[in-house]
Amino acid sequence: MIPVRGTFITFEGPDGSGKTTQVRVLAQWLRERGVQPVLLRQPGGTPLGERIRSILLDSRSDLELGPVAPMAELALMFADRAQSIQQVVLPALERGEIVLCDRYTDSSEAYQGAGRSLGSERVLALHQALCGDLQPDLTILLLPDVEQALERARRRNERFRRQHGGKDENRFEVEGDAFFRRVHAAYAAIAAREPQRVVTISGNGSIETIAHSIREIVQARIAAFVPA
Amino acid sequence: MIPVRGTFITFEGPDGSGKTTQVRVLAQWLRERGVQPVLLRQPGGTPLGERIRSILLDSRSDLELGPVAPMAELALMFADRAQSIQQVVLPALERGEIVLCDRYTDSSEAYQGAGRSLGSERVLALHQALCGDLQPDLTILLLPDVEQALERARRRNERFRRQHGGKDENRFEVEGDAFFRRVHAAYAAIAAREPQRVVTISGNGSIETIAHSIREIVQARIAAFVPA
Repeated sequence: MIPVRGTFITFEGPDGSGKTTQVRVLAQWLRERGVQPVLLRQPGGTPLGERIRSILLDSRSDLELGPVAPMAELALMFADRAQSIQQVVLPALERGEIVLCDRYTDSSEAYQGAGRSLGSERVLALHQALCGDLQPDLTILLLPDVEQALERARRRNERFRRQHGGKDENRFEVEGDAFFRRVHAAYAAIAAREPQRVVTISGNGSIETIAHSIREIVQARIAAFVPA
Repeated sequence: MIPVRGTFITFEGPDGSGKTTQVRVLAQWLRERGVQPVLLRQPGGTPLGERIRSILLDSRSDLELGPVAPMAELALMFADRAQSIQQVVLPALERGEIVLCDRYTDSSEAYQGAGRSLGSERVLALHQALCGDLQPDLTILLLPDVEQALERARRRNERFRRQHGGKDENRFEVEGDAFFRRVHAAYAAIAAREPQRVVTISGNGSIETIAHSIREIVQARIAAFVPA
């Protein structure tokens, strides 16, 4: 495939699946081949997005701010997304660049839609209303075995609790096993629904093994950018 | 009508139509009759809403934050709305109280939908997805004559510019006449579409004349609350 514009690649997966590391490793590999990717995380990645991210983090600890209602959380995620599409993603794609984005609408569908039980239809309606037709060209879904991932998350939470007196867990890491299983199942359902876009890496391999798989997938899609 | 739950009353109208004053006057009149209304403004009215409000205000002056994309602005308005429904409006209605809200979804339809040309359908889809079926029992729409209102807005903007060197106008007051006319027309269209819910006060009367009209409308709707 020779792209007529840039390429929009998103990374998805449950917390602890190693997404963020893999974005970094792939970006470094691209740079070594003379390709400067645009990196983005959601929520975040724009000044507005970082303000939204800090609201979501503060709502865990700031008693005055208090908990964010699930529907408000969902709307904030899309406010962040709409801003980064406008400020970062579309301009980069128009310049013909590669955008690597750590989480996109699939995360909202998995976490808010399934995890918080707000429903996929609601999330997809918001995507349609606020993000128009901007879909990733390729989504790398890191989906480790659910039982192993749960065990790892439990160990990590236990470590956090010991170190920080329970104050520093990720908002989404305190939701319990049932929440985690809903998120995991939603990701699997998205991959089954959109096999052209979503490539699932389901193993619990080493960072380097997974990075190698990702490079092969990306190279096949963006041959015009990256020399073999 | 004897309400089986509280009553949700919203105030709508273009900037400068006198809404905020009329909310205050009506609230005072209710209190004098022993009814304690719950007051709310959108955006704002909850700690999250005030954070969102300050982001929207900062985006006018904070160079680092920069302009908020229209779709992101729309999503932020609905994040605020979803939070205030959950934290303020529904609990008050369940306690059987009267909620007076300065702006609600009609404002998004008029300002973002028509003013920023994002379309009514998009705004109503977001309302459906994020606010469910919570519609006001009554909406007081203050819709002054468009030419007189434009003249007043021009004078006020001129005064602001002289006093503050152009730095302190309301975001929506710098959009120009065409924007104002679209907002005005959208409000008129909403009133025509939902005559049961929306009562339009179209004159350019004095504060006391308008307050009197509002009292009569409210009294007819909430006879069970307020003695004549």
